[in-house]
Amino acid sequence: MSNTYVVIMAGGSGTRFWPFSRVKKPKQFLDVLGLGKSLLQMTFERFRAITDADKIFIVSNKKYKSLIAKQLPELSMEQILLEPFQRNTAPCIAYASYKIGKKDPNATIIVSPADHVVFKDEIFTSLIKKAANAAKSSERIVTVGVEPNRPETGYGYIQYMEDDSTDIKKVKTFTEKPELEIARTFVESGEFVWNAGIFVFSVSSIKTAFGQFLPDMAESFDSIEEHLYTAKEQEAVDECYTQCKSISIDYGIMEKAKNVFVVLGDFGWSDLGSWDTLYESSEKDENDNVIRGNAMVYDSNNCTIIGRKKKLLVVCGVDDLLVAHHGNAVLVASKDCKTSLRQIVHDIQAQNKSEYL
Amino acid sequence: MSNTYVVIMAGGSGTRFWPFSRVKKPKQFLDVLGLGKSLLQMTFERFRAITDADKIFIVSNKKYKSLIAKQLPELSMEQILLEPFQRNTAPCIAYASYKIGKKDPNATIIVSPADHVVFKDEIFTSLIKKAANAAKSSERIVTVGVEPNRPETGYGYIQYMEDDSTDIKKVKTFTEKPELEIARTFVESGEFVWNAGIFVFSVSSIKTAFGQFLPDMAESFDSIEEHLYTAKEQEAVDECYTQCKSISIDYGIMEKAKNVFVVLGDFGWSDLGSWDTLYESSEKDENDNVIRGNAMVYDSNNCTIIGRKKKLLVVCGVDDLLVAHHGNAVLVASKDCKTSLRQIVHDIQAQNKSEYL
Repeated sequence: MSNTYVVIMAGGSGTRFWPFSRVKKPKQFLDVLGLGKSLLQMTFERFRAITDADKIFIVSNKKYKSLIAKQLPELSMEQILLEPFQRNTAPCIAYASYKIGKKDPNATIIVSPADHVVFKDEIFTSLIKKAANAAKSSERIVTVGVEPNRPETGYGYIQYMEDDSTDIKKVKTFTEKPELEIARTFVESGEFVWNAGIFVFSVSSIKTAFGQFLPDMAESFDSIEEHLYTAKEQEAVDECYTQCKSISIDYGIMEKAKNVFVVLGDFGWSDLGSWDTLYESSEKDENDNVIRGNAMVYDSNNCTIIGRKKKLLVVCGVDDLLVAHHGNAVLVASKDCKTSLRQIVHDIQAQNKSEYL
Repeated sequence: MSNTYVVIMAGGSGTRFWPFSRVKKPKQFLDVLGLGKSLLQMTFERFRAITDADKIFIVSNKKYKSLIAKQLPELSMEQILLEPFQRNTAPCIAYASYKIGKKDPNATIIVSPADHVVFKDEIFTSLIKKAANAAKSSERIVTVGVEPNRPETGYGYIQYMEDDSTDIKKVKTFTEKPELEIARTFVESGEFVWNAGIFVFSVSSIKTAFGQFLPDMAESFDSIEEHLYTAKEQEAVDECYTQCKSISIDYGIMEKAKNVFVVLGDFGWSDLGSWDTLYESSEKDENDNVIRGNAMVYDSNNCTIIGRKKKLLVVCGVDDLLVAHHGNAVLVASKDCKTSLRQIVHDIQAQNKSEYL
């Protein structure tokens, strides 16, 4: 598909996999599933089935530039778009859309997170192609919905209009991370799917949407368009970002736009948003343990055990435990621990122990 | 007490504190209690209250020679007796007794393990002095008994004859590590005390005992006596050890001799024989956790958490757990784990992972 471009958003710096994910090397750059490839590399490969390598762009923070270049040596530096700081997904998508649109105003753009997993690649590919065809040369913005199999409270939900005559359903509402009771209602109703965070649109339709719903942001990017593909690009982008508010594309545009559609599928998707979802997405031993690295495990069940290569981790007589040894830190936490990882990471920072983050 | 000598047995190579204790640095050389001193150093200091530094001897394996010299710089090399390999306590005590006896045939010798702890030093000192006085210039072999406060199955027990007329009670039986039911009977009877592994005797009485109960061993040491304090000593000892059977002084002599006595006391003793006894002997936080090193602990109770200085250990939402991070290994084990540390250490060896032992 010659006009099809992919934008992989790889700027996250979450610590939900601490101590595995670190500020210097967040989740998307890690081999979270133990398959010998980072999530970014897996995402890149997945989209190579859809378009050429030179039409795939990565947007990320400046500090990850060399990490990206190292993990994806196929890319030219022109394909790595650098943000000066995090401003959520809307500015990230604006930057990439303006950049691609300047060279190819007829482009169809697929935007995807870098750090999700997909187990059924073929279904995924055909679904994305369907979305791209629906978005191509049209005003439609197409999202991707995953049939839910549980009332997950960590995901966003998309409600759509039942219409058996088409695979491209009109979206009614977006809901971010609902309470459990609400999530249950959503799943039971059959009208809701998980929001996979993937958006497909033409350059013209996304520019129209930015102009309509985030006009300040559109104006900022309009004003720097002339510097794209010049020596002044980075400086202009850095300045432009200082003027952008931090807002997600979901909240800034998708929830408000009337031309949003969704394609549905079951392609074995997880956002790998936490140690729990990593456990769900990983292969287990006969005692339902997920075991990685150099570990010896005795009399233990339902554990997530992530060891290091050259360190030995011995786990004995425990259930429902997370044990993660990475770099200079070890985390041992029961899966129903009341203290959140967010709190722990916050405390580490507060105690001036940032060398462990 | 000018004729009083101390022999500290520091040849053990146990792995009951793995991963904290290692083959290269077993428990006696470690600061197990986190007090800034190794157990050997604490034992040495304890006996300095009883005799002069130049009358304290250490018996250990050759491979620990430099470790001992480093931890106890007060000692001359003459005071460090080196065994070629482990042969349990009987040959160790024979070697030290022959060595001391050759120079001072009137010596009273106190033999003690290097790796036990004593929390009430003054009571200990006066009890040992009492034992030394009882053994001095007599045929009596005097052991030290600790009033039991629980039916511990990991300790040896000494049964003695009730006799209110003296503090030096006659010993009836020695029992190694009894079953729980038997240990209960022992403690309830009031006739049993824990065997602290300390023996006090004159040179003449121990030589007599070796001649009577371990005549082959006595003969072997008789034959090398001429080489003690000469350049040939080590070679002679090495050869002598090949002829000695591996046997404990308890089993080889104490259980059989008729002239064994015991002094009793409560001096806050533990053999620190396992992670459990370490927990019992250590200061706890308000949630009954023992915490060492660089650790952050949340919502956890009754845990033993031993971190490293420059590594961070985070423990969250667990009870009755042992987490020990040392060197290149981490152990996470429930306190009631069915698999023994002995089995784990055996498995590590069987898997050719001796770099972790």
